[in-house]
Amino acid sequence: MTSSTVESFAGLWTSLHPIGRDPDSGGYLRYSFTSTDAALREWFVARARERSLSVETDRNGNLWAWWGDPSPGDAVVTGSHLDSVPHGGAYDGPLGIVSAFLALDRLRERCPRPRRPVGVVAFAEEEGARFGVACLGSRLLTGELAPERARGLADADGTPLTDALATAGLDPGGLGADPERLARIGAFVELHIEQGRALDTHPVGLASAIWPHGRWRLEFTGEPNHAGTTLMVDRRDPMVTFAYTVLAANKEARLVGAHATVGRAAVTPNATNAVAERVTAWLDARATEQSTLDALVAAVQWRAGERATRDGTAVTVTVESVTPEVRFDEELSARVATVLGDGVPVVATAAGHDAGVLTVAGVPTAMLFVRNPTGVSHSPAEHASDADCAAGIEALASVLEELACR
Amino acid sequence: MTSSTVESFAGLWTSLHPIGRDPDSGGYLRYSFTSTDAALREWFVARARERSLSVETDRNGNLWAWWGDPSPGDAVVTGSHLDSVPHGGAYDGPLGIVSAFLALDRLRERCPRPRRPVGVVAFAEEEGARFGVACLGSRLLTGELAPERARGLADADGTPLTDALATAGLDPGGLGADPERLARIGAFVELHIEQGRALDTHPVGLASAIWPHGRWRLEFTGEPNHAGTTLMVDRRDPMVTFAYTVLAANKEARLVGAHATVGRAAVTPNATNAVAERVTAWLDARATEQSTLDALVAAVQWRAGERATRDGTAVTVTVESVTPEVRFDEELSARVATVLGDGVPVVATAAGHDAGVLTVAGVPTAMLFVRNPTGVSHSPAEHASDADCAAGIEALASVLEELACR
Repeated sequence: MTSSTVESFAGLWTSLHPIGRDPDSGGYLRYSFTSTDAALREWFVARARERSLSVETDRNGNLWAWWGDPSPGDAVVTGSHLDSVPHGGAYDGPLGIVSAFLALDRLRERCPRPRRPVGVVAFAEEEGARFGVACLGSRLLTGELAPERARGLADADGTPLTDALATAGLDPGGLGADPERLARIGAFVELHIEQGRALDTHPVGLASAIWPHGRWRLEFTGEPNHAGTTLMVDRRDPMVTFAYTVLAANKEARLVGAHATVGRAAVTPNATNAVAERVTAWLDARATEQSTLDALVAAVQWRAGERATRDGTAVTVTVESVTPEVRFDEELSARVATVLGDGVPVVATAAGHDAGVLTVAGVPTAMLFVRNPTGVSHSPAEHASDADCAAGIEALASVLEELACR
Repeated sequence: MTSSTVESFAGLWTSLHPIGRDPDSGGYLRYSFTSTDAALREWFVARARERSLSVETDRNGNLWAWWGDPSPGDAVVTGSHLDSVPHGGAYDGPLGIVSAFLALDRLRERCPRPRRPVGVVAFAEEEGARFGVACLGSRLLTGELAPERARGLADADGTPLTDALATAGLDPGGLGADPERLARIGAFVELHIEQGRALDTHPVGLASAIWPHGRWRLEFTGEPNHAGTTLMVDRRDPMVTFAYTVLAANKEARLVGAHATVGRAAVTPNATNAVAERVTAWLDARATEQSTLDALVAAVQWRAGERATRDGTAVTVTVESVTPEVRFDEELSARVATVLGDGVPVVATAAGHDAGVLTVAGVPTAMLFVRNPTGVSHSPAEHASDADCAAGIEALASVLEELACR
């Protein structure tokens, strides 16, 4: 059976490969509400129609495919997202969608008349790569993100989200909490490629929690000046304060076993022969405990401010988002663990997910992880073996059978 | 006379103000071969026509206005450039053009029939802000920059220089050394706002030399990865190596009394939740002696490489341009100093200029500096007082009179 699952997986998986792939990097540029996104949605709809599932796009741009009528509630839903970070890998998100369709196929063979309706969902803009808010579709669905705030978002080119939605045939006026649709979900199980190296001996694991994490915007300001003629002692160079802060964040995170990253920066005016006027950078920080995260960010902010005083510059730190720890549903996770068998690894993750957003909104939620041997993520080099992906599909099928048929 | 010079200056100066000004920063976006550049050139042509000067654009995009026939050679030429760095100040370049026209007016009053023809020049792309090569127009004119290399240049949007030239009505096939035009110049005197605080007690000074200086491109490469899930010990983060190198350059320059700046950087993929794959940065370094400059760049490169080894990243350093020390013509400078009077400050500058390019090509060249009280340069805050600008015009007029009429 596993060999036929490997074949089914390989077939469906390769049909997604060409969509949004950058031939130079080998990575993906799958941004929400673009023509690439439209191609991904067509792919989703075609896969659902092949299976005679009913398809709908909700008011927040999330795509749903249903086996059975979900309106009474108590549905079992699985899925993930189709969008990517810039030059991201093929697995992050799409593996959960492909696995959902193929697990549904297995489920139908084993249990033609389930007790509960079963759904497959593709959430919109999980990565936040275009409009800057991660889990945009699920946060709008649950009401965690106010529609007024979403309607104020724009991408890096200045295109408002409202225009992008309209271009994609969606009504920006419809954004916002959708409690009736949310109430249909009796259980949500998301399958995702693991994003570290936590699964070394098992192809499939179970998530316990998502680390508390957040994003902070750091604005370093100084005095623009001529790079050639300005004496070093006369400079107020924000690039220097920024550089010190990158190193401080790296060191402070290592000291407390947390994660801190500066992966995005913008320099003004960004000219070779000009001392910068401003450097804007973003700090991504995550830790196992909220208190550790708070202390880490406070330490980085203190050290940045102390250095700014020495450099004659200024630094301001603005919270863009903070997500407290999310613990997945204990009862549901215990039931999933029983299906997966003795010795299944249970690991916490430092990455945010739509499953975390639904958990916060009170939906019973669990997550399965598929082994990632190198731990590389958000990169073209991200990889899982076909055999491990097939094992993930089998595990997800068994979980759906347990939840929908028993 | 000085008060009338102040009035003449203020009138001509303000006519340039609106062209290419960014209302948000108060700085200028005067990039070569754009519609803004076309407006600046129209302004130049109108000022020349008002004075019945003959105007020509040479094969490399430099603008010339002539009083008298320059073809026999031995002309006295003054001028500077009209382009700016991004959000640069109003004075850097244009002050030399405005002063040239007004000094010519003074000269005509005092010496209606000069011995030598007198020219005003506006060199193209002095700042290198659009196509990355400083003194593009003068380097092409002298043959220092090969036309094949120029034809391979493109701006940040990917527009080739050849397309930009064609759009501006210039023939890209005509680029290259123009020895006949160069041979017309018997002496070149460039007036420029001072770019440090070297002139504290005098409104006008004389340049002795340009420091050796250059630009180096630094490529830091690592492994793109997920900012949340990748353990700190598993990272190969080029942002960290880059940050260390910024601090190293700053410290090494201070240790040897040189100038080092990283004012431009680009991050790939530049996403908040991704460990960067690549950071490209540019080092601008300058020193009084070539040996000091060489040692500075070697030290920065060594420390960057050493840190890269520790970070698991890689760094490559590529020379983009190096300009050896330029000493302005001793005989011409001595003559100019005599005109300017006893006690005129003579200062070296760390900034490159078209006058330096002409010096290297064998043209007798001198430079006048106008006081800049704060020393701020390449910034909207760059400033010289109207009285000091008027003193610069008077000084330049006396120098032209000395050279063209005696």
